Amino acid sequence: MSDESFYKHHVFFCMNVREDGRRSCGEHGAADAQKHAKKRIKQMDMNGQGKVRINQSGCLDRCEEGPCLVVYPEGVWYTYVDTEDIDDIIDSHLIGGKPVDRLKI
Amino acid sequence: MSDESFYKHHVFFCMNVREDGRRSCGEHGAADAQKHAKKRIKQMDMNGQGKVRINQSGCLDRCEEGPCLVVYPEGVWYTYVDTEDIDDIIDSHLIGGKPVDRLKI
Repeated sequence: MSDESFYKHHVFFCMNVREDGRRSCGEHGAADAQKHAKKRIKQMDMNGQGKVRINQSGCLDRCEEGPCLVVYPEGVWYTYVDTEDIDDIIDSHLIGGKPVDRLKI
Repeated sequence: MSDESFYKHHVFFCMNVREDGRRSCGEHGAADAQKHAKKRIKQMDMNGQGKVRINQSGCLDRCEEGPCLVVYPEGVWYTYVDTEDIDDIIDSHLIGGKPVDRLKI
């Protein structure tokens, strides 16, 4: 990892929708969760270089454990059920620097 | 960064297409480059847990310096012109562990 990371926390939400019957993040609220996170980070003026970036991503290939997201450069993986879980990740990890153990995968 | 990263190298290609006249990665070969990288990593049997994951991503917000991609957990950012550049990033960085200075942004 670089000494100076372009984003302090770079978050990728798996947005995959599988159409073959297998579980996928996109069918479990990923779009709403990502939108919620992006909006909240922006409201707190925490988006941008040196701060936080919230991204959509193609399939992260962990849909069975999902819906999932990953926070880099830490490489911490999470699942979530609702926007309360997303808020915990934002408040505790992205703002407070303390990962949320109960949501880790 | 975790002691054990789920993927040794997790690569995100910015696929953004801007429709307001500003420069964007999606208009500069991002889709072809990402496909090429994904195919080549698979051919080398380097894809999967503990190895490499090639992902599409929403806008990484560095399109002016792009087309761009980022490799985590290292947090190394690259631009590229063609598939030869992509092959350099694959061979030197993802396989060899040595970042490609000439393509860094």
